[in-house]
Amino acid sequence: MTNLMRMSLMAWAMVVASDLWAHDRARTPIRIPDLPDGLTLKCDFHIHTVFSDGKVWPDIRAEEAWREGLDAIAITDHIEHQPHKQDLPTAHNRSYQIARAHGEALQLIVIRGSEITRSMPPGHLNAIFLKDATRLDVPDWREALAEALRQGAFIFWNHPGWRGQQADGQARWYPEHDELLKRGQLHGIEVVNEREYYPEAHLWCLEKNLTMLSNSDIHNPIGLDYDMHAGERRPLNLVFARERSADAIRQALFERRTVVFAAGRLIGRKEFLEPLFERSVRVLTPSVRVRGTGRAYVQIQNDSDITYVFRPELKDPDLIFPEEVRLPAGRVGLLEVRGRNKQTRGTRLVRLAGAVMNLWIRPQTPLPTEMRFEVILMPEDNP
Amino acid sequence: MTNLMRMSLMAWAMVVASDLWAHDRARTPIRIPDLPDGLTLKCDFHIHTVFSDGKVWPDIRAEEAWREGLDAIAITDHIEHQPHKQDLPTAHNRSYQIARAHGEALQLIVIRGSEITRSMPPGHLNAIFLKDATRLDVPDWREALAEALRQGAFIFWNHPGWRGQQADGQARWYPEHDELLKRGQLHGIEVVNEREYYPEAHLWCLEKNLTMLSNSDIHNPIGLDYDMHAGERRPLNLVFARERSADAIRQALFERRTVVFAAGRLIGRKEFLEPLFERSVRVLTPSVRVRGTGRAYVQIQNDSDITYVFRPELKDPDLIFPEEVRLPAGRVGLLEVRGRNKQTRGTRLVRLAGAVMNLWIRPQTPLPTEMRFEVILMPEDNP
Amino acid sequence: MTNLMRMSLMAWAMVVASDLWAHDRARTPIRIPDLPDGLTLKCDFHIHTVFSDGKVWPDIRAEEAWREGLDAIAITDHIEHQPHKQDLPTAHNRSYQIARAHGEALQLIVIRGSEITRSMPPGHLNAIFLKDATRLDVPDWREALAEALRQGAFIFWNHPGWRGQQADGQARWYPEHDELLKRGQLHGIEVVNEREYYPEAHLWCLEKNLTMLSNSDIHNPIGLDYDMHAGERRPLNLVFARERSADAIRQALFERRTVVFAAGRLIGRKEFLEPLFERSVRVLTPSVRVRGTGRAYVQIQNDSDITYVFRPELKDPDLIFPEEVRLPAGRVGLLEVRGRNKQTRGTRLVRLAGAVMNLWIRPQTPLPTEMRFEVILMPEDNP
Amino acid sequence: MTNLMRMSLMAWAMVVASDLWAHDRARTPIRIPDLPDGLTLKCDFHIHTVFSDGKVWPDIRAEEAWREGLDAIAITDHIEHQPHKQDLPTAHNRSYQIARAHGEALQLIVIRGSEITRSMPPGHLNAIFLKDATRLDVPDWREALAEALRQGAFIFWNHPGWRGQQADGQARWYPEHDELLKRGQLHGIEVVNEREYYPEAHLWCLEKNLTMLSNSDIHNPIGLDYDMHAGERRPLNLVFARERSADAIRQALFERRTVVFAAGRLIGRKEFLEPLFERSVRVLTPSVRVRGTGRAYVQIQNDSDITYVFRPELKDPDLIFPEEVRLPAGRVGLLEVRGRNKQTRGTRLVRLAGAVMNLWIRPQTPLPTEMRFEVILMPEDNP
Repeated sequence: MTNLMRMSLMAWAMVVASDLWAHDRARTPIRIPDLPDGLTLKCDFHIHTVFSDGKVWPDIRAEEAWREGLDAIAITDHIEHQPHKQDLPTAHNRSYQIARAHGEALQLIVIRGSEITRSMPPGHLNAIFLKDATRLDVPDWREALAEALRQGAFIFWNHPGWRGQQADGQARWYPEHDELLKRGQLHGIEVVNEREYYPEAHLWCLEKNLTMLSNSDIHNPIGLDYDMHAGERRPLNLVFARERSADAIRQALFERRTVVFAAGRLIGRKEFLEPLFERSVRVLTPSVRVRGTGRAYVQIQNDSDITYVFRPELKDPDLIFPEEVRLPAGRVGLLEVRGRNKQTRGTRLVRLAGAVMNLWIRPQTPLPTEMRFEVILMPEDNP
Repeated sequence: MTNLMRMSLMAWAMVVASDLWAHDRARTPIRIPDLPDGLTLKCDFHIHTVFSDGKVWPDIRAEEAWREGLDAIAITDHIEHQPHKQDLPTAHNRSYQIARAHGEALQLIVIRGSEITRSMPPGHLNAIFLKDATRLDVPDWREALAEALRQGAFIFWNHPGWRGQQADGQARWYPEHDELLKRGQLHGIEVVNEREYYPEAHLWCLEKNLTMLSNSDIHNPIGLDYDMHAGERRPLNLVFARERSADAIRQALFERRTVVFAAGRLIGRKEFLEPLFERSVRVLTPSVRVRGTGRAYVQIQNDSDITYVFRPELKDPDLIFPEEVRLPAGRVGLLEVRGRNKQTRGTRLVRLAGAVMNLWIRPQTPLPTEMRFEVILMPEDNP
Repeated sequence: MTNLMRMSLMAWAMVVASDLWAHDRARTPIRIPDLPDGLTLKCDFHIHTVFSDGKVWPDIRAEEAWREGLDAIAITDHIEHQPHKQDLPTAHNRSYQIARAHGEALQLIVIRGSEITRSMPPGHLNAIFLKDATRLDVPDWREALAEALRQGAFIFWNHPGWRGQQADGQARWYPEHDELLKRGQLHGIEVVNEREYYPEAHLWCLEKNLTMLSNSDIHNPIGLDYDMHAGERRPLNLVFARERSADAIRQALFERRTVVFAAGRLIGRKEFLEPLFERSVRVLTPSVRVRGTGRAYVQIQNDSDITYVFRPELKDPDLIFPEEVRLPAGRVGLLEVRGRNKQTRGTRLVRLAGAVMNLWIRPQTPLPTEMRFEVILMPEDNP
Repeated sequence: MTNLMRMSLMAWAMVVASDLWAHDRARTPIRIPDLPDGLTLKCDFHIHTVFSDGKVWPDIRAEEAWREGLDAIAITDHIEHQPHKQDLPTAHNRSYQIARAHGEALQLIVIRGSEITRSMPPGHLNAIFLKDATRLDVPDWREALAEALRQGAFIFWNHPGWRGQQADGQARWYPEHDELLKRGQLHGIEVVNEREYYPEAHLWCLEKNLTMLSNSDIHNPIGLDYDMHAGERRPLNLVFARERSADAIRQALFERRTVVFAAGRLIGRKEFLEPLFERSVRVLTPSVRVRGTGRAYVQIQNDSDITYVFRPELKDPDLIFPEEVRLPAGRVGLLEVRGRNKQTRGTRLVRLAGAVMNLWIRPQTPLPTEMRFEVILMPEDNP
């Protein structure tokens, strides 16, 4: 081996060694398009630390969220449930303070919250954007919620169908919730908590005009509950805010400008799902050519981190479309078009109606949409 | 379980089932920035099929390349080496024709080439952009190369240090190569072939002003030689072309507008490596604040698919920088800045000189660069 | 840095470099237990090459199968469908010969087969363990099958619900199949082909006492259709043979000693599924202790490469069991046991009845099984 | 679609949904063979929690270790460094108590330890198998170590080259360490801590007959520092113990029966490395046949979770061996043998001497070993 080769190999090896032996402390941005009138912020508003029944020091919550690509988190330790109290004396504002300091270093927004933790009804409620959490530590839950409201909090009902409070897993609406609603003390509901989806809560948000939420309710280090390195992700709220700030998030929440993002699905109002989808995908081949009963490929690039599953519904006298088109996250999918007849000739503007199966505007109801492209039909014997 | 829940679960499950049971035929774009004056096309100019000693039908080469995110490939079956001849009669242009038809359906550029396969010297040479490969099938290699040139081909020397022809793995320059150079029949050299890097060839390209090339020389289905699903990638040429066309690629090759991209490294002229790096990364936090001997984090987003390894060299009286900063592909890395002194105060514009260890402008020579950001130094006791 | 450190770092780096830069040509054994009276061989009996409409040279089929951990493959190019004929003249036995030579070098069993390719009925049928495939190239399919039988072939019906022949995707039984059955010319049916499962075929195999089969029908390089590096796997036959030989496989096929292994599910007769499951898993903690309404964990190790999903059905007056227990492949899963009452005391031998959801003994019918372990119940206040 | 098909699809989907939506709480056993006279236990003896400067509640340490396949951990919070003290009052034994309770539920061994944290010399030392950690909280480090010894502790020196105490990263031996050694208060040294290897410490262990250790020193949730889901693993001690108990581990440590397992390398005494390697790999093809200058493949199965890199050194007049043979973890690797001559004939028992590059018996010194197999040489023209 020449000396030049030996030295180059060594240089090569040294760079490689740095690859393996080092560990990246890095943030993975979540690619979801902004809306025309708002940034798409990724937020988790239900998080625990050692200061209630969670298992990590609060700064870890900011570190985990920053790495996962989130923009904002709320620390929401329980007011009433403090199993570590004997070792770690109650201090309702401390977890927020510690997490915020770390969040500031990493430019992640940290919001002060608390979980008001009562039996059902009314169950558990989160109040976020608090000014002083200790003042929620009162015997009467009605008083706690009134205080939260006085502090300007955004208040939502957590996991309404949680089996810890509803043995059959079904969410139920109680008079107490009517009462809260009437007093302006209930602004949203968790449609997804952890790995559960509550279709009843989904309907209530639509009927009662409440904000839909989707939170991790994480207690463990996040990596024990989600395989982050394998691409799994905690449930998130997409919040459509005018800027990247706590104030703008608070305003967007009160304006119900959210979409649930959980387990690869988006759940929310059509006005948000429609532009999210349309801004995620683009047809790279606006015109394709089909000869006789041959096939052509419409290429569709999906620049988002959400894999979309499109099911065409159009029947066409000249063209055959697939039952399902998958548009994988960050990649270019193929929509295969086949000719039905050997001799058809002409240019067709196709508006391929269908639905995106993993975007839900109501329980059981996927988002209708259409794909547009041109097909030039040519007879088979025409070279 | 309510009926609503049951139906929702079912809908959920059906979408999920489609995830697992289906298989995506999709393209994964390779994210590397364009240059100010040219698109960055990803190309492999050395590829075999069953029509010489390769192992796949030619259309597979277009399919593999499209999926991997390439823009162009050249099919370069051997003229002289046809081990399947008894089953599959020699037809020098057929593999190109078959691959091109598939390439057209997927909008991938397929270039006609051949490998002129002789003992060393002159060894193996690829001629690409041919008009008729059969005319290269002549006894005298000088005549074959003359014919290639008459057809307008771009000609390069393959794997000059290949152990099949150089037992010690060292590339050697012969009088025959001088002869080729003089006649204008040698335009480039493979600096990387498969998993080998030839530092001598790297130097020759710089000294003799030749085009640097990096090719897979793939014979197997690509997935047998590279763990694509684990993020591995064949060696590639980055070609800086004025448009996405075969003509523009040919012109760029003759103008030496290429960079080698292999095993996570870029090898090439500084004029190309510099803008590639600068257009890949951006400082998200142009100004950070360090209090006393505390630390701050400069966040650097790398939008490319290349992980960069930056080693700062600047010594600073007030600030401590890390030995190495890794900027992982598609993510945000952290450059940690620490204060040396408790009481320093002031605003500093830092121009952090260093080198990118995996970008090589010569053998052993990483690209020098600098990172620019502002540090506001504050004394420790100043809140 | 000391010289010792520098040298050690270099040694470290050199080993690491070898990790990254090399590519492993290696076999990944598929861990599924043998039966008491037979080896569990992993086989794919439906495979194409360039010699019909496949896309790879035949030796690649042996290479792919060896790497994936298979024991045997059959090469089954179409007799009647030869789209590459113009370039590659028909030679019905050649693909087998080429693949077998490579199989011998790697100690993989390669079986000679052909796909008799007709319109429905009778559709496509594979004949394997042929002696001379060219003699099947006759106009009358009845004659082709009679010839296959004369050569001692095992004959099975391919993809009975394939949409290329059944537009609605439903498998249908025709008089021609009765005729074949009566003549002893139909020994098995594909219950799974590629990514399709045919419940009708599953029932026919049970009713008519035929061999259940599960094949890839692969045409592309396998890595284009299955994400091998991500753990995906082609559909396989588990064949329970007395030894690792072609003869023993043939005998086991005629004796219907097979199980379908596809998409993480096993489909087959209870007599095979039961021991496969029982020999895969073992309870590591035969006795656990539950205090009051507390919980305990039964640890269950799954030494196989199949993730099992167990659903307990037992209701117990003293103990609460989970709805579902996942036993991930190659890992240790947890079965959580909780006490119902604070004061129960005693030792209980639990025989936890349930079903393994991904092992199917009939369509819709999971394998019943039970888990056995001891629970020691202790009252809460008893330290 | 028939009803049968629809129902089957639904059943299919439901199983699949359970795959995706659930999250496995599971243990991944680490496959490393036992020795003839001892179990191979995987242990981490340097771990922090929120009770000193760590970031997780202590039970998480048992959970993480159980999942990662460890057998035992020691909780070793700092005695002198308690940055959370204001929120969480000092309680030197509590982290052990909390972790042990969780360890008992999961059958993981948890050992009581403390880190005696002083400036260099003597630096940081861990004492494990303590009876009462609070009694180590004394001003004089000599007294703390004497107390640890009185409690029967195993005492080792942590990260001797840590840059926090040695700016140049070089480990140095001080008179204080001689003093400790003389008093029997120093039983081992960390040869690896986190991502650092100390070749000096490696030599000291050999010269002074001390136990070699390799620990994570983990402060964060383990998943923030190691990409577990991508197969990365914290540094571990392999401890060769007569049974799976705390007592047996303690005895093995005092008997220096350990091997360092870090970053894919094993570092330790030859008497342990040799049987570990030999019991990991087995030649599947004891006899291979080479015809003329052809090639044959010796198949070597590696049943362990360690990828071995073997470099043959034997020169042979008849056979050519590769420069390097990789034996990937849990897979079957190939050792390619090629004939040198066309006409050699005979049967050769090959004893292929070489070294395993990632097993180190001294700094820079790989474990010598040999592979044994038979080669039958046949002349080329002899069919």
